[in-house]
Amino acid sequence: MFITLEGIEGSGKTTQIQIVADWLMTIGRDCLTTREPGGTPIGGQIRSVLLHPENSDLAPAAELLLYVADRVQHLETVVRPALAAGRVVVCDRYFDATLVYQGYARGLDRGMIRQLHQLVCNGLTPDLTLLLDLDPEAGLARAWRRIDADAAHAKESRFEKERLAFHRRVRAGYLDLARREPRRFVIIDAEVDEQAVREQIEAALKSRFKGNAG
Amino acid sequence: MFITLEGIEGSGKTTQIQIVADWLMTIGRDCLTTREPGGTPIGGQIRSVLLHPENSDLAPAAELLLYVADRVQHLETVVRPALAAGRVVVCDRYFDATLVYQGYARGLDRGMIRQLHQLVCNGLTPDLTLLLDLDPEAGLARAWRRIDADAAHAKESRFEKERLAFHRRVRAGYLDLARREPRRFVIIDAEVDEQAVREQIEAALKSRFKGNAG
Repeated sequence: MFITLEGIEGSGKTTQIQIVADWLMTIGRDCLTTREPGGTPIGGQIRSVLLHPENSDLAPAAELLLYVADRVQHLETVVRPALAAGRVVVCDRYFDATLVYQGYARGLDRGMIRQLHQLVCNGLTPDLTLLLDLDPEAGLARAWRRIDADAAHAKESRFEKERLAFHRRVRAGYLDLARREPRRFVIIDAEVDEQAVREQIEAALKSRFKGNAG
Repeated sequence: MFITLEGIEGSGKTTQIQIVADWLMTIGRDCLTTREPGGTPIGGQIRSVLLHPENSDLAPAAELLLYVADRVQHLETVVRPALAAGRVVVCDRYFDATLVYQGYARGLDRGMIRQLHQLVCNGLTPDLTLLLDLDPEAGLARAWRRIDADAAHAKESRFEKERLAFHRRVRAGYLDLARREPRRFVIIDAEVDEQAVREQIEAALKSRFKGNAG
């Protein structure tokens, strides 16, 4: 079982992934939480190339390939071994993020991105994707509060400085993907309070793991 | 005009690229010499991930993608702009190196590597490729002499420590590519003395630039 969390900046993926892990523990499932990019030591090095504020001339296709390189390293050394061992893998961002950020939002050809995924990741697709959906203005406000609290992080992150219009394209891209694959995606309203978000996530998990517990 | 130099470790590409540049200057052609990986600032960062001695668990497909990311960045920001400006670009290693090192020598699917090149580099192919060919034992002896003179470099480079058998596969791969594309490749015997190598390179260039000088 391979579960991914997706959503714009500030949608709360880092908090919600813990809710998923906690719930899986209550049904006795061994679970691994991880993330992209940077879920491996080599991925961390790739991530620092991606986020370095001086790398503003990074070509869009080179950026795409760095994300995919990080993904391949993560799949080969973390995700596939854990899945093979029968663990549930819960990953903060995966292929949908690439399709949305590099495709829908930056305008790279989405067919090319899909072909690349088939070619080098054998098209490995999550069993369940939780899309934490909220208005980008609310998400960015949250992300910026985090940044204010940590100036070093703010300096590091190219993405949280991007314009609102960009994040609107990201949200629209995610919602389009969810419409195209309604069986895989569950849209979680992430604009409500924490408890209400938790209830939606637990309901989505319950319906997927029905009769599958223990 | 896009010229590449290829060959195993110790084949003398760094010296020979200067011979190419000097000769082009004598016929009044503006030329840019560059290299892969690492021909751009971002490429330098990618190169350090590739060569880092602690990254021994780098998955072969991730390694491939890092090389291609470096290539795309280099093509977009260095090679294509120079070609568009009418300059001759002379590059130390290019796509053939990927096909040979990752395909022939490490065993990744060569069809997949070619598809990837088509997909993200639009299959840009050199007009002329000089293959500096020599016995890997002689090449490695040269490379090791260089390393002895520079212990820091030796520590940095994963590749120059690879086994002789690997370099034999690299040489055989290059020779196979040259056989398949005899119009593009010129095989230079790099085991002879410097003056004799220079003469072969200049002869290859003369025949390509015939009637094209000035």
